[in-house]
Amino acid sequence: MSRVAYVDGRYVPHSLAVVHIEDRGYQFADGVYEVLAVVNGHIIDEEPHLVRLARSLSQLRIVQPVSDAALKIVMRETIRRNRVDDGIVYLQVTRGVAPRDHAFPRLAKPVLVVTARRKRAIDPRIADDGVAVITIPDIRWRRCDIKSVALLPNVLGKQLAKEAGAYEAWQVDQEDCVTEGTSTNAWIVTAEGTVVTRQAGNAILNGIVRLAVLDIVRRENYSLVERPFTVREAKAASEAFLTSTTLDLLPVVRIDGEPVGSGMPGPLSRKLRDCYLVHTAAAG
Amino acid sequence: MSRVAYVDGRYVPHSLAVVHIEDRGYQFADGVYEVLAVVNGHIIDEEPHLVRLARSLSQLRIVQPVSDAALKIVMRETIRRNRVDDGIVYLQVTRGVAPRDHAFPRLAKPVLVVTARRKRAIDPRIADDGVAVITIPDIRWRRCDIKSVALLPNVLGKQLAKEAGAYEAWQVDQEDCVTEGTSTNAWIVTAEGTVVTRQAGNAILNGIVRLAVLDIVRRENYSLVERPFTVREAKAASEAFLTSTTLDLLPVVRIDGEPVGSGMPGPLSRKLRDCYLVHTAAAG
Repeated sequence: MSRVAYVDGRYVPHSLAVVHIEDRGYQFADGVYEVLAVVNGHIIDEEPHLVRLARSLSQLRIVQPVSDAALKIVMRETIRRNRVDDGIVYLQVTRGVAPRDHAFPRLAKPVLVVTARRKRAIDPRIADDGVAVITIPDIRWRRCDIKSVALLPNVLGKQLAKEAGAYEAWQVDQEDCVTEGTSTNAWIVTAEGTVVTRQAGNAILNGIVRLAVLDIVRRENYSLVERPFTVREAKAASEAFLTSTTLDLLPVVRIDGEPVGSGMPGPLSRKLRDCYLVHTAAAG
Repeated sequence: MSRVAYVDGRYVPHSLAVVHIEDRGYQFADGVYEVLAVVNGHIIDEEPHLVRLARSLSQLRIVQPVSDAALKIVMRETIRRNRVDDGIVYLQVTRGVAPRDHAFPRLAKPVLVVTARRKRAIDPRIADDGVAVITIPDIRWRRCDIKSVALLPNVLGKQLAKEAGAYEAWQVDQEDCVTEGTSTNAWIVTAEGTVVTRQAGNAILNGIVRLAVLDIVRRENYSLVERPFTVREAKAASEAFLTSTTLDLLPVVRIDGEPVGSGMPGPLSRKLRDCYLVHTAAAG
């Protein structure tokens, strides 16, 4: 089966899916994106993703190239044509093609790209055993709430993690507080059993799985505080975990080589992961 | 005449110059660039541009796709095919095309794109009358010494300047010191006649025109200090100017609406501009 991508109004073979070299996404990182999970052929939490997309675009004053209704159709068609039952759909919107000049062009038409792919095989032990993270300085810009494609610092951070034998790098601000992972949100559970994750703001991307897990935590009546936490607090936590659309919820069992709690996935992490998988299964 | 671009080994009509949607430049801003001036068909200060390119690439651990010698040939051929006598040659190197995943791909081959265009008509009064700048918070990442394509904050800053009726936005760090413009370096001349510009470091891109003007200032025996300067100092300066490959050296006569010195281009700015134009004319 050959893959198909949607590029600026047309479905094309993935191998031939191209954009112009003067697309501002290529020259200026002047664009935004979303990654949505597909479970049993259904898109998970589509509405909050579309709300966030609209917000990112409006912050950059990029006009959404198609309506939400049309975008939903394009995503479904891209999923269908790629025969994705379980996987992800990726969409990217850039400000469009224009002669290179930093300021917004007057005439550019935003460009929408949509792709879909099946879930990558993830070692099943990861969820059972948990993963390791390292901590690194957060060197990103000050508008991490915008889901832009200016991801170079995230790339460098993820590579550092990989080379350290870790799964993710938790980025740390100048107050020694964790902001988030390079492509995931960061959570801890204190010795008292309180779930802690950084509040939404300019320092983090407000993850859609983050929002879903917050709902679950509240529904299940666990103690919860949204606030920054330090690296020291994280290392002294009884549990830690991360969330993202592609990874769901993964227990974090080591931070900079030091075990978190017992060094095994904690009971609350397991419970919340199960609840989240029920949430996606129900939607799917 | 139709324009021609060099894309990953081939010369193609500019209108058909494309890259794959999974080029990491498009999805991650995982690439770097250079803009070189062309005067009388000759490339200005080619060597320092190539040195900086090599440094940017090495900081990101992207392998330079072609040798310097080959790159020089490609730039010349692109200039020739586009019949550029006075203008710029633009080059961009990304980490290449790979299935989307933050960490460095194992197999991607870096992609080189080169374009050239004639100088845009600039209102000649700009150099005579000087330009206005505004000041804005510097919200960029902490590795501005790497000339990456992650330029979204620069885009937003330049747009703010434009909408304020200014030519450039000077970005200001948390100590209230100017780092640089969104695509230019920032300079002042103190009441005592000392030329001040921020020292090279992670907070600024070490401009090639900046280096050339530093040489001129030293050669002409003007007093010079490379250090951060505050917005207040800039507004109290006797002169101010900016430098960039596409603009050469332009006097700055207003900062946030307040006149700098007499509100007219100062004598040292004019003198340095003249010297710089001699430098490029000699090279060209």
